[in-house]
Amino acid sequence: MRKTKGKSHMSRVAAIYPDDRVTLREVGLRDGLQLVKRFPSTAAKTDWVRREAAAGVRHFEIGSFLPANRMPQFADVRAMIDLCDELDLHSAALALNDRGAEDAVQTPVGEFVNVVSATGEHSQANMRRSREAAVALVAKTAALAAEAPHRPLVQVGIAMAFGCSISGAVDPDEVVRLAIASAEAGADLIGLADTVGFAGPDQVNDLTARTRAEIDIPVSVHLHDTRGMGVANASAALDAGARILDGSLGGLGGCPFAPGATGNVVFEDLVYLCERKGFATGIDLEKLVAVREIAAAEMPDEPLYGALARAGTPNLMAWRA
Amino acid sequence: MRKTKGKSHMSRVAAIYPDDRVTLREVGLRDGLQLVKRFPSTAAKTDWVRREAAAGVRHFEIGSFLPANRMPQFADVRAMIDLCDELDLHSAALALNDRGAEDAVQTPVGEFVNVVSATGEHSQANMRRSREAAVALVAKTAALAAEAPHRPLVQVGIAMAFGCSISGAVDPDEVVRLAIASAEAGADLIGLADTVGFAGPDQVNDLTARTRAEIDIPVSVHLHDTRGMGVANASAALDAGARILDGSLGGLGGCPFAPGATGNVVFEDLVYLCERKGFATGIDLEKLVAVREIAAAEMPDEPLYGALARAGTPNLMAWRA
Repeated sequence: MRKTKGKSHMSRVAAIYPDDRVTLREVGLRDGLQLVKRFPSTAAKTDWVRREAAAGVRHFEIGSFLPANRMPQFADVRAMIDLCDELDLHSAALALNDRGAEDAVQTPVGEFVNVVSATGEHSQANMRRSREAAVALVAKTAALAAEAPHRPLVQVGIAMAFGCSISGAVDPDEVVRLAIASAEAGADLIGLADTVGFAGPDQVNDLTARTRAEIDIPVSVHLHDTRGMGVANASAALDAGARILDGSLGGLGGCPFAPGATGNVVFEDLVYLCERKGFATGIDLEKLVAVREIAAAEMPDEPLYGALARAGTPNLMAWRA
Repeated sequence: MRKTKGKSHMSRVAAIYPDDRVTLREVGLRDGLQLVKRFPSTAAKTDWVRREAAAGVRHFEIGSFLPANRMPQFADVRAMIDLCDELDLHSAALALNDRGAEDAVQTPVGEFVNVVSATGEHSQANMRRSREAAVALVAKTAALAAEAPHRPLVQVGIAMAFGCSISGAVDPDEVVRLAIASAEAGADLIGLADTVGFAGPDQVNDLTARTRAEIDIPVSVHLHDTRGMGVANASAALDAGARILDGSLGGLGGCPFAPGATGNVVFEDLVYLCERKGFATGIDLEKLVAVREIAAAEMPDEPLYGALARAGTPNLMAWRA
């Protein structure tokens, strides 16, 4: 089923996700809105993207292709993709079933995001399909993407890769097996997702390094800060050679059913971590932090996290020295 | 001036700070109270120590020997040291001048803490002495300690070791030089202190490893979470072989003159990090988190930080598996 990838496609992937620098993906407008009750207007989202783009952010996970009546916060996903296209930003959107992928391919979206759960239990509970069926969907999505004139990338996020809210501990062998299967099915990059913030730094380092050793496509790491390990885990992922990391503005992405569960790792703090570790992100921290005012105004009930916003952005020149 | 350390003293140091496991020092009752306007009563502090001891915490930085009119929050330092002695806990207290050391030696305190600043500018501004004079004071304190029947340990904390609020970047060579000088002056352990939360994980790893390579006494790492790097820096310190880490309950220790500046790395989250990295701390997280209610009741204006307290303590069995 796998479509052979031409050299030009491989070099396009490398142009979008170069392996000699860090790419930070802002997922606040997707994962950050996944569970909120009140969400920003399209105008506010547009402002959010424009201002983050002006701050230097180039990669956005921007929405999800799902029936708008189920997820009204993503009803404007096409408009958001068009906006990214207009601003020459790389956009990604979830496409979790055939219908989603067929809708997505009609848009200029830069990347489809499929999800394969690390455990059979979570796969059934979350998507009512086996892991094998999820990998088969990757193959179909990849085939669809390969036929589209603008040829979007296909990311496969391995959910619950570091621990599962249903099954508990997750066997890393299973995660590596699913990453290989997804790569063989045509994925352009694999995302290792700590969906419930279960991971510790040594675990992130080990699984990232193992996965990278087994597949020849980029590995991204998607972290949640539920138990305060987000930045430490991101540091461990970078140490293991990951060069693509997800974060959300203000750490959005908490779960309303678990009031204490914070969301994704804070994007601003992730930028600071990278710069502190010697990776130039091209992102202006002060401008980035200022975008939080949009989230605060549009979602006054959502707590915003992050130390940089609290402590003030340090003098870039001083801490790069 | 250096007192020769006998074998029995060296093995006492190793008994208090064994190098084959992690020791977590709770500094909330010292650094955490350093700058607060309102502080807990002696009764509340007593309850705090007793309950943390019941949760498994064995090392407390408990106060400072300073004129009580300057630092009323530490006026009960002798009572707190007696309490630790009674409960068979290791107590440490700041003794920043001759008078402080002479007062401290009259108590059963387990450890004197001296401070040497990494930069001459900070040393003058903070303690009105040169770094050389600070090292000379270490020698005097060590001599005094060596003559005391219960022979307290002497820690030298190198303030601003990762960056200085006055001079900016700090030369790691200078820190290593001061660590060696302090060890030669009789220190039993060296603390590398990120006093203003300036450090990044690679920097912590490098300086910890270098310092450990140059001296044959234990190296502890004292971190602040000002810019959200606290847990990542602690992970890096452990990776570099440090086995003594400081933290404060709820991340107390913020600065009232810099409203956004959070305090020490959160003790509860540090416990979780260590356990997640395979170091048994002997600390019951649930009982530890519950002690925050004392801090909240006694200092209602002080924000308490920490992800574990927010997310709930995970099932220990599950995440040790």
